[in-house]
Amino acid sequence: MGESGRVPVGIVGASGYGGVQLVRLLQDHPNLELVYLGGESSAGKPFSDLYPHLGHRVGLTIEPINPDVIGDRCEVVFLSLPNGLACDMAPLLLEKGCKVLDLSADYRFSNLEVYEAWYGRERTDQSVASTAVYGLPELYRDRIVEAQLVGCPGCYPTASLLGISPLLKQGLVIPETAVIDAKSGTSGGGRQAKTNLLLAEADQSLGAYNVARHRHTPEIEQVCSDLAGHEVLVQFTPHLVPMVRGILATIYATLRDPGLVRDDLITIYQAFYRSSPWVRILPSGTYPQTKWALGTNLCYIGIEVDPRTARVIVMSAIDNLMKGQAGQAIQCLNLMMGWEETLGLPRLSFYP
Amino acid sequence: MGESGRVPVGIVGASGYGGVQLVRLLQDHPNLELVYLGGESSAGKPFSDLYPHLGHRVGLTIEPINPDVIGDRCEVVFLSLPNGLACDMAPLLLEKGCKVLDLSADYRFSNLEVYEAWYGRERTDQSVASTAVYGLPELYRDRIVEAQLVGCPGCYPTASLLGISPLLKQGLVIPETAVIDAKSGTSGGGRQAKTNLLLAEADQSLGAYNVARHRHTPEIEQVCSDLAGHEVLVQFTPHLVPMVRGILATIYATLRDPGLVRDDLITIYQAFYRSSPWVRILPSGTYPQTKWALGTNLCYIGIEVDPRTARVIVMSAIDNLMKGQAGQAIQCLNLMMGWEETLGLPRLSFYP
Amino acid sequence: MGESGRVPVGIVGASGYGGVQLVRLLQDHPNLELVYLGGESSAGKPFSDLYPHLGHRVGLTIEPINPDVIGDRCEVVFLSLPNGLACDMAPLLLEKGCKVLDLSADYRFSNLEVYEAWYGRERTDQSVASTAVYGLPELYRDRIVEAQLVGCPGCYPTASLLGISPLLKQGLVIPETAVIDAKSGTSGGGRQAKTNLLLAEADQSLGAYNVARHRHTPEIEQVCSDLAGHEVLVQFTPHLVPMVRGILATIYATLRDPGLVRDDLITIYQAFYRSSPWVRILPSGTYPQTKWALGTNLCYIGIEVDPRTARVIVMSAIDNLMKGQAGQAIQCLNLMMGWEETLGLPRLSFYP
Amino acid sequence: MGESGRVPVGIVGASGYGGVQLVRLLQDHPNLELVYLGGESSAGKPFSDLYPHLGHRVGLTIEPINPDVIGDRCEVVFLSLPNGLACDMAPLLLEKGCKVLDLSADYRFSNLEVYEAWYGRERTDQSVASTAVYGLPELYRDRIVEAQLVGCPGCYPTASLLGISPLLKQGLVIPETAVIDAKSGTSGGGRQAKTNLLLAEADQSLGAYNVARHRHTPEIEQVCSDLAGHEVLVQFTPHLVPMVRGILATIYATLRDPGLVRDDLITIYQAFYRSSPWVRILPSGTYPQTKWALGTNLCYIGIEVDPRTARVIVMSAIDNLMKGQAGQAIQCLNLMMGWEETLGLPRLSFYP
Repeated sequence: MGESGRVPVGIVGASGYGGVQLVRLLQDHPNLELVYLGGESSAGKPFSDLYPHLGHRVGLTIEPINPDVIGDRCEVVFLSLPNGLACDMAPLLLEKGCKVLDLSADYRFSNLEVYEAWYGRERTDQSVASTAVYGLPELYRDRIVEAQLVGCPGCYPTASLLGISPLLKQGLVIPETAVIDAKSGTSGGGRQAKTNLLLAEADQSLGAYNVARHRHTPEIEQVCSDLAGHEVLVQFTPHLVPMVRGILATIYATLRDPGLVRDDLITIYQAFYRSSPWVRILPSGTYPQTKWALGTNLCYIGIEVDPRTARVIVMSAIDNLMKGQAGQAIQCLNLMMGWEETLGLPRLSFYP
Repeated sequence: MGESGRVPVGIVGASGYGGVQLVRLLQDHPNLELVYLGGESSAGKPFSDLYPHLGHRVGLTIEPINPDVIGDRCEVVFLSLPNGLACDMAPLLLEKGCKVLDLSADYRFSNLEVYEAWYGRERTDQSVASTAVYGLPELYRDRIVEAQLVGCPGCYPTASLLGISPLLKQGLVIPETAVIDAKSGTSGGGRQAKTNLLLAEADQSLGAYNVARHRHTPEIEQVCSDLAGHEVLVQFTPHLVPMVRGILATIYATLRDPGLVRDDLITIYQAFYRSSPWVRILPSGTYPQTKWALGTNLCYIGIEVDPRTARVIVMSAIDNLMKGQAGQAIQCLNLMMGWEETLGLPRLSFYP
Repeated sequence: MGESGRVPVGIVGASGYGGVQLVRLLQDHPNLELVYLGGESSAGKPFSDLYPHLGHRVGLTIEPINPDVIGDRCEVVFLSLPNGLACDMAPLLLEKGCKVLDLSADYRFSNLEVYEAWYGRERTDQSVASTAVYGLPELYRDRIVEAQLVGCPGCYPTASLLGISPLLKQGLVIPETAVIDAKSGTSGGGRQAKTNLLLAEADQSLGAYNVARHRHTPEIEQVCSDLAGHEVLVQFTPHLVPMVRGILATIYATLRDPGLVRDDLITIYQAFYRSSPWVRILPSGTYPQTKWALGTNLCYIGIEVDPRTARVIVMSAIDNLMKGQAGQAIQCLNLMMGWEETLGLPRLSFYP
Repeated sequence: MGESGRVPVGIVGASGYGGVQLVRLLQDHPNLELVYLGGESSAGKPFSDLYPHLGHRVGLTIEPINPDVIGDRCEVVFLSLPNGLACDMAPLLLEKGCKVLDLSADYRFSNLEVYEAWYGRERTDQSVASTAVYGLPELYRDRIVEAQLVGCPGCYPTASLLGISPLLKQGLVIPETAVIDAKSGTSGGGRQAKTNLLLAEADQSLGAYNVARHRHTPEIEQVCSDLAGHEVLVQFTPHLVPMVRGILATIYATLRDPGLVRDDLITIYQAFYRSSPWVRILPSGTYPQTKWALGTNLCYIGIEVDPRTARVIVMSAIDNLMKGQAGQAIQCLNLMMGWEETLGLPRLSFYP
């Protein structure tokens, strides 16, 4: 506990979008205090060199990454590193007694072979990995409360799983008919300078990518299988949309009972998410706009049934950097600390 | 034939985006001469009051809509009016000997009951309507060549049908598994001032609309049924994307033969569109960006197969105002006049 | 004082962007409680019909505008109406003992003849108008503290005046050389559906408007004259930029003393705004991005001197709907109530 | 002359935006044939690897840069390289008899010391450089006709100089009062992946850069001085705007004769550009939108006078990659070849 009486928190990999979201969110959190920022290429730089607009609020300098130092100084550590690095760092921090929330893919898989197959890196930390909990509170709240290590979900899986879970959990649809057509703003690609993410390229354009092979697929399937009680394969297609933030997942599946109507499903969804303050089921006939979720930790879900085709269409909208990343990590931490799930998180967008 | 030796052309409903595209395209067409612009609320105004950037090239003033005058002056008339008006005007113009290309929905349906059900207007022009040809040259080239009246397809149906047709025509997929997730720039909503199309609302946002009930659905189904040889229902969902132009249709369907691979399908598509200069099948592993088609009459098609799920995913990209509207209308007219299908149409985007 | 112990607040003209910003800001303000929303065309509708994303937080229905009812129920009233309506309503509300903050132009002018000349409406409420204070706290904090009626500044004047004031107040520049080239996102045009504000029109484009005759000019000149101690005319040119929010004012003026360097001016600006928590003077060589201010009540100011031309160039960036409108109104109210100027206002943008 | 009877053309530095614009424009030019594409890091790649949408039209592979090979194969060479490379290459190509059009800054300066001071590279090719003509046809048409080596202007100077030239040439304004506030889409930054040009960073934002020290300043001043007949310093400030293409220069200057009205100036501008088919002077009260110029070689100019301040405000809009770069280069080549200035260049935007 710091002098402020607040829990001291560190962020490793502070220079990217995940890092700056966390820094920003921590400014408003009443129980947390940011005490450490770590980075490699940016070590030694004041954080405000990277993000000048924060200069009057964030005085920290980015430090080299040293697990001992971090462990001494922080009770909680967020790892916001490229895939394949957290699994070297997390075991050391856990040993030092830190709670660890990893924003990469390293601790999302209960079966490390799946990770190895999709991410192409061998893993030798099975025992630590087996203690990790998948950080989607709406599904795994009870386990997150007990966790020391949370593997925070990807942005696409968050939007997709919040949209599809009630259908699978209740057995309302035929799982193998599920098609998830997801669309994301370009900030999902991170702060790395890539040609295809330039405004000049990405603006006024729209396209799919990694069709039939995006790495978020196995993560979605793991949870879907868990919910359905048997192995489920889903069709997942990501698209890049010319906007900064936001994900919309449009989910299609064939109803087992073609007699179900829209309002039945809305009732089922409302019940499913009754204790989930961050999920809003929209009224009949209202579909979500990603803009509604911007800058908040909310997920808006709209539901439609097509009686002609016996399909349900679910639309799930989040801010990819908030509920899809940093906001959800704080939500998990709130649970791990025994606090209100909503503590210190932004609850309403500025519109328009 | 005008003094210029070119065919005199009129546009009724010139003030909207369809109108201004046609005006623009006609400036570059070697065999056509724009001689008439008609409108209601805009009658009496120089066209350059509406579109000042054209002032140095287009000197015409918008005239009141008088079928007799139009018929006397024009050999060809484009109708770019709201749904339900062309069916009053077209019969008169046809009687005067004009070739008529309608950009609205009025002449897209072989069965007028379908039109009446989806558009809520009774029709009494069965005999004229029965002579109309659906203006998708890649499928109905032979009939367009003979037509006096063409019902030009909607923007979504153009992208969707060019993407799905080879699959249905060749019986490669199970039709009822077809899901079309389509995304459009906001110019598809026309030049009417609607709150949801304001930049302040639509930018940085993304959402589905008219889910399970968009009026382009029956149009897509009519052609799909024609190709499949039996009635086909499709799942069609339109989305509004924060960009000016462009449509991407992402199409999912289950393969009858799960042994088919991507390259098989690319070969089939290339054969299907061998004589279609405006359709480009992309190489293996390349997916279309809508930007590639902007300002052109092209349709770019990318194909993927997911061996895990036995689905084919087809991505079809067009400029919604060109191949999706005005460009395709000129393409049809080229055929009706016995000219090259490509005559006078833009063939390459300016990038980026 | 409401049951909550918080001050009851009403908003007249709640349906526009000014209204929804206020509604949003009031959700986070610890001392204020929104108890009334008034409108004309929208009366009778739940507010969430206009802004569905707020449905789970704002349960109010828009009521007809009745000054008696408002006065009975509210201690504070924000008027967010088109120009020329507040001056009918404010006197009635003041009589009922309300504090009134007007977001329109009606109470911005100390000389009503200037208002009449630029806004084309006669005024007969001279006595009430003479009690109004111009709601720019950085310049008129002392008077706002005492005011019952505040005329909140326009968005362009806020950015322009915060940028230019230290120069004029200290006599550092030749006033008649001042050129203000201002650029705004399209939300400044409000939620009315106008063709030129459609995404299809405004996106990918940029232009000036109302050159040499924008109505914010006399408002800027009134304050500049006040600061300079004699009448000052400024050159003010607004531009529309393809983005939702944000204003950047680029201000040029010739220095009286060409020996002044950048760091001198930065020091002067820092001193001028020492007690102004919402103004941030950027370090030497850093220029503001409008994005830094989005969703906050901040104004970021960057300063450059061109020794070749002896001009100072000041760049001032705000969120046009926050510091440029609703945020500033709350800032004024905080002062009127004797609270901290920063109370309940967002202090940091979400980036990117 | 190639087998096609068309003039063989090469492009060195084909992979960037300047290169792809030239490639695109050459597809439509009746007298030119693209026979060579050269690059360094991209050598060996089919051009369609970089720009897949061109795959069906451009079959060329990028070759290593060898002046001998280029000189043998091409009559005309466009150099689209970073600053400081063309001056090594151009002399060799000129010796081989090629006409050379350089898109970089290397041959824009009549006084190489100015170049050396602003670009930080020493030059030893004074004799070749002295033969170069500044490629702004509206001012230097006669000299371009005779030139073998043209230094094509920067994008900002083109917009700025077309806007300000009549004022200076006719002595209508006091030169030292000139302020040029310029705004550009992000494609002006090229196809290099830079963080600040990412859509996630640049969208929804606006800022000035290189204030008081942008390298296009001396280029503007060189021509202004030439027109004014004495040395002129201008205030030039570039801004980055969230759009792909387009530049707007808003130009302010104090009139020598405050009695001049808007229509006087419009008449003077029309006369000045009477023989310039690519400049359009807008009617009284109409101001240009950058969108009007997109995809064309046009410059739209709007003019306003503020009688209150005795200033003229000129707004000049171009497509930064067309009239601001590749289009203008072709325009120059047309003149060098003795062809119509307009030959093969796009004359009308697709709107919206």
